[in-house]
Amino acid sequence: MKIIVLKFGGTSVGSIHRIKKVSRIIKSYSKKYKVIVLSSAMSGTTNKLINMSKQISSNFSDYEYDTLVSAGEQISCSLLAGQLLANGIKSKSWMAWQIPILTEGKHKYSRIKYINKTKVLKFLKSGGIPIIAGFQGVDKNLNITTIGRGGSDSSAIMVAKFFKAERCVIYTDVEGVYTTDPNKLKSAKKIKNISYEEMLEMASLGSKIMQPHSIQDARLNRIKIQVKSSFVNRMGTIITKRKNIINNKIITGISSTDNDAKVTLLGVKDRPGIAASIFKPLSQNLINVDMVVQNISSDGKETDLTFTIKSYDLNKTKKIINKNKSINFKKMIFDKNVSKVSIIGVGMITTPGVTFRMFQALATKNINIQVISTSEIKISVLIKKTNVTKAVKCLHQEFNLDK
Amino acid sequence: MKIIVLKFGGTSVGSIHRIKKVSRIIKSYSKKYKVIVLSSAMSGTTNKLINMSKQISSNFSDYEYDTLVSAGEQISCSLLAGQLLANGIKSKSWMAWQIPILTEGKHKYSRIKYINKTKVLKFLKSGGIPIIAGFQGVDKNLNITTIGRGGSDSSAIMVAKFFKAERCVIYTDVEGVYTTDPNKLKSAKKIKNISYEEMLEMASLGSKIMQPHSIQDARLNRIKIQVKSSFVNRMGTIITKRKNIINNKIITGISSTDNDAKVTLLGVKDRPGIAASIFKPLSQNLINVDMVVQNISSDGKETDLTFTIKSYDLNKTKKIINKNKSINFKKMIFDKNVSKVSIIGVGMITTPGVTFRMFQALATKNINIQVISTSEIKISVLIKKTNVTKAVKCLHQEFNLDK
Repeated sequence: MKIIVLKFGGTSVGSIHRIKKVSRIIKSYSKKYKVIVLSSAMSGTTNKLINMSKQISSNFSDYEYDTLVSAGEQISCSLLAGQLLANGIKSKSWMAWQIPILTEGKHKYSRIKYINKTKVLKFLKSGGIPIIAGFQGVDKNLNITTIGRGGSDSSAIMVAKFFKAERCVIYTDVEGVYTTDPNKLKSAKKIKNISYEEMLEMASLGSKIMQPHSIQDARLNRIKIQVKSSFVNRMGTIITKRKNIINNKIITGISSTDNDAKVTLLGVKDRPGIAASIFKPLSQNLINVDMVVQNISSDGKETDLTFTIKSYDLNKTKKIINKNKSINFKKMIFDKNVSKVSIIGVGMITTPGVTFRMFQALATKNINIQVISTSEIKISVLIKKTNVTKAVKCLHQEFNLDK
Repeated sequence: MKIIVLKFGGTSVGSIHRIKKVSRIIKSYSKKYKVIVLSSAMSGTTNKLINMSKQISSNFSDYEYDTLVSAGEQISCSLLAGQLLANGIKSKSWMAWQIPILTEGKHKYSRIKYINKTKVLKFLKSGGIPIIAGFQGVDKNLNITTIGRGGSDSSAIMVAKFFKAERCVIYTDVEGVYTTDPNKLKSAKKIKNISYEEMLEMASLGSKIMQPHSIQDARLNRIKIQVKSSFVNRMGTIITKRKNIINNKIITGISSTDNDAKVTLLGVKDRPGIAASIFKPLSQNLINVDMVVQNISSDGKETDLTFTIKSYDLNKTKKIINKNKSINFKKMIFDKNVSKVSIIGVGMITTPGVTFRMFQALATKNINIQVISTSEIKISVLIKKTNVTKAVKCLHQEFNLDK
């Protein structure tokens, strides 16, 4: 019998009513599979615990933070196992230290290194359904660790990896991955199959269903993921290898951001190493520079440099650049009224002219492109924020995602 | 430097404000002592978790119950350690399994068997203040256990035992142990010193400050206890060995119960073993029989048997007795309108006439005594519930407890 991993997010186990519902979902798998369940904390719990820690200190100990917040999964997992037992199904909750799920790295941001399968496998073989606490780990000195917000997805992927599961089902409060945000565009369609690479681009570009690093973990370990809703019983979206996907569409999805800012330095001395001298202090201050464009100067002496950052980093960026005397420029201008719109699809690798079609479609709607950046499976453009809805809609049509 | 154990109950750590207050109390000890802290869950947390388990099933798994409710201490201890750290005091939270505090026995009602001192002692010697989760344990198979409601007191006593602490301070929301319930009698006085034996009688007879079994643990291990308030800085009550106490009073305290019921079987066949045949099925059904009195029959053939039980056990008791055909009696009568009033004091061992003084004082107030039971340091009488206040007041005066 094959092993399947089911992971339930916070809203899926957000109340006793939801826990009862989820226990029926788990049972429905138990005839065909050996089931391992991973659960997040009940929605609201983690935030409540974090708020208490903030009331104590804005600089609350990372060590105690991990012990504090991991109590949330202890509560949800024991309740869920208790519910299954009350339904007559053999089940047991497992905290990370009981398995153990060994982590390494810093508190709050640990990474799962090793999962000891012995006890859980014995329980599975005896017909039991283990309910494993997501998000938690334990280090080699028996300290409680956590693996970052949204880390329960990573826990599930890693459990799927170590137990060689056939599939990892991520149960959440949306029905799957959409061609674009269905809250913003009504004609958005659920995607049946998407590749890890596309999903990674979707995730890093603003789609909030899964954290990029858990998709990357799945990609590296070739874990097939299914994202689906625990509220309605529909197919959801499969995230898998490129070659498993038969797709006649060039573009798989469109994403947009709403917290970018554009910085332009005018009259920068055009000499080798100038870009590095600007971006090095930003990177040292953990400011992530996204799109970069440098205009060629007419006289070969001066140039204009434009880049984008997250808008919440704008004040810090201004200070760093103004303080750093080695950066010579005439004027700095900035614009928070910008958004990045991206089209994503493995289909564009083999299809010429995608860039042209994108630019033309935007031009038809009088949308001006400020900055462009591309990767193998993605084209991003920076445009005026007020144009985002119009841009997403016309691109969605242009690449036949409405159908 | 001597070790002191400080234990904080749920109301003492019931909010972030209270945790800040408690952190200052802890600090005040740290100059004179090496401090080990035990904490309960924040008040309300444990009940909230238990209520969730009841919403799942009235027969919620004992195993999962222990995992569920022990999350409460995980939260309070990490917050308290985080608060001390924020104040610049070296501190660290310890869950039972991290130490470990090994328990044996059934889930929900485990007993602490062994505490490994190595890691905590090293931390103490390095100048740290360990914050240990009360109520929790772990068994030899790494299962989470708990040691019963109010078990944090037992945790503190056992930690005090294993670490050879000079004293165990139980911080709570009352100022100490009183001669009688101060909510019921205004002239009740705080007791400065009380023996384990007296405190045990006070605790089992209705005083709610500490669970009897934790006092018994302290008595067996000769741990000096101080009960005091975390809300006001006053001396509190010392619970210690009899010979440490200089007390000129015959009676130390008076307690009363308000949930007793009296059962009388009329016309019971008077033959050897008849009492056993009645009480055996009750004990098998975990019904605790307290006071017993058997009248001598005039003809030697029949007798009347009276006993008291907790009033919540009354219906169960009636059923058991009616079902059991081997018990021959003519009629069963019962009375829920009764209370047990007890005077407690080691002084009565060496003072004759205490019983007489008690009975006479009650007689003066026209209070009829229904059943009597005595131990070496206690005299209990069963009276009408409506007479309790009057009885406690007159006995409090009779034995000079008002002064």
